[in-house]
Amino acid sequence: MRILLDGMGGDNAPEAIIQGAVSAQKLIDHEIIVIGQEDVILPAKKKHGGKKLGFVPASEVISNDDAPVKAVRSKKDSSIVKGIELVKNGEADVFISAGSTGALMAGGLFILGRIQGIDRPSLATVYPVIGQEPSLLIDAGANAECKPNNLLEFATMGSIYMEKVMGRKNPRVGLVNNGAEEHKGTTLTKAAHELLSRSPINFIGNVETRDLPNGVCDVIVTDGFTGNALLKLTEGMGLMVLRELKKRFTKNGLTKMGSLFLGKELVNIKSEFNYVEYGGAPILGVKGAILKMHGSSDKIAVEKTILKAIPYVENNVVDVIQNSTVEIEEIVQS
Amino acid sequence: MRILLDGMGGDNAPEAIIQGAVSAQKLIDHEIIVIGQEDVILPAKKKHGGKKLGFVPASEVISNDDAPVKAVRSKKDSSIVKGIELVKNGEADVFISAGSTGALMAGGLFILGRIQGIDRPSLATVYPVIGQEPSLLIDAGANAECKPNNLLEFATMGSIYMEKVMGRKNPRVGLVNNGAEEHKGTTLTKAAHELLSRSPINFIGNVETRDLPNGVCDVIVTDGFTGNALLKLTEGMGLMVLRELKKRFTKNGLTKMGSLFLGKELVNIKSEFNYVEYGGAPILGVKGAILKMHGSSDKIAVEKTILKAIPYVENNVVDVIQNSTVEIEEIVQS
Repeated sequence: MRILLDGMGGDNAPEAIIQGAVSAQKLIDHEIIVIGQEDVILPAKKKHGGKKLGFVPASEVISNDDAPVKAVRSKKDSSIVKGIELVKNGEADVFISAGSTGALMAGGLFILGRIQGIDRPSLATVYPVIGQEPSLLIDAGANAECKPNNLLEFATMGSIYMEKVMGRKNPRVGLVNNGAEEHKGTTLTKAAHELLSRSPINFIGNVETRDLPNGVCDVIVTDGFTGNALLKLTEGMGLMVLRELKKRFTKNGLTKMGSLFLGKELVNIKSEFNYVEYGGAPILGVKGAILKMHGSSDKIAVEKTILKAIPYVENNVVDVIQNSTVEIEEIVQS
Repeated sequence: MRILLDGMGGDNAPEAIIQGAVSAQKLIDHEIIVIGQEDVILPAKKKHGGKKLGFVPASEVISNDDAPVKAVRSKKDSSIVKGIELVKNGEADVFISAGSTGALMAGGLFILGRIQGIDRPSLATVYPVIGQEPSLLIDAGANAECKPNNLLEFATMGSIYMEKVMGRKNPRVGLVNNGAEEHKGTTLTKAAHELLSRSPINFIGNVETRDLPNGVCDVIVTDGFTGNALLKLTEGMGLMVLRELKKRFTKNGLTKMGSLFLGKELVNIKSEFNYVEYGGAPILGVKGAILKMHGSSDKIAVEKTILKAIPYVENNVVDVIQNSTVEIEEIVQS
């Protein structure tokens, strides 16, 4: 397996990317190749003992400030465009990047193309559940406005990813709604509920957001506007609560012993909130494997994402999604 | 001023309702009247020293299990229907209830009627901001599907309530969106952004949900589906984080001293999260004052809501909203 890593994307590139790749390389036998600008990547490889890592040059960089569609069309020799092309040509099995989500999505759509039968490819992301295994939230923001069949596609693709990559057996799929009862919801969620009920996935019905932090389901299905709002609120709440607790405990002048305990627990909880560490967000529904990492990914996040890429490729998630589309179409049309 | 209190609504009725009314009565000169079943309210009044409280009999009760519209139409002698009718007839200035939100909304619409020029009356609720004054979130769930002019109405009514009742000068109004930039968003949020920009309110633009816990704006404007999702996630996250911290600190066997500090801070933060204590959620856009309390309101919540009802009535919020509708219509039509 050839794992291709974007050496130019994210806040901590190229250092964290190379360091994470070097750590991962020690654990696996697969080939890891870094793509990026020669004068940036080669010195970093040398500095961090990355001589076993492969290298592919790409002279351009797409930044978060670039308009995604325009950048993908004009920066042909960027790490993102060239990286996704290498997946398309079969020269790499998966492309991993902490770069622009929009450009990765646009690149996936234009270069790899949609899987036939999938109307809207989607970005799925891990949702932190403290003290338990995380859930998967789909759509995380790629499709702000959705139709009922899109939510069925998200549910199906999310369920496949959760089972094949995260190893969750028979994952419970929940639909975000403003009430648990079947008859509640908007035009969209009511119609989606009906489609999901007829699907072979393990659909447990509507879920209310108050139960998401308790891990009420393995796959959280929602439109991209709501998904984006939920993810960012979770992030904001987590940071705020930890900051407030720290401030108050410091102010109260806890005993040294107590502070030590506290500090450790706060760090533990913070790290569990830090869903970037769980290993990448897949772009599902395109004809090839792309994993997006959080822009602030550190070397541990990079290492974990590389490890997650292996079952993604080995279990042929792209093909399994392709095979599910016949059933999706049957449900939608019946 | 005559403040009318539903003695039958909420998990802790009638005890907490009567106790809260008795506490509030000591602080204010206004008349407080409790409405409900004679055999329930009179003994509770007697038990908790509520002889100064007025009483109005209502033989029926609308529960959360009743279908709201049907209940409002059939249970004419319920505390909710009769209570709202007393507001309509001018026999009470405000009606406060911890009962069924749906029935209060339906009662407001059918009995009081919409303010002319307000397409969609809305439920607004306080959003907790730890360590600061709370924000107001509108719509909190009454209108799951909205049009751009509805969001302009919510923004205007929320801004008026925040200024007149919560005493916030020139409240900053933010529109929940999937990006801060003006061009980002759905068809709905883009059109709403355009309307809000032309409104005389203090519109600060799009806000991302990650900034809500930091109090990025005073009035959080969104459709009822998203509003419901954000409120319930905030509630769920708050409970989860506090529960996890408590569990871990207990497990680690903190020193007694440390535990005392911790326990106190956890209770403090929990109480700040407990937005029910801030005093009721107004149903805005109907021709009369209704305040909905959380179903689990305790006596402190009841007392605080009664106090909040005074500026609601004294500052003629209903009239001020009525006067704002000309401007709303001009913005929408231009």
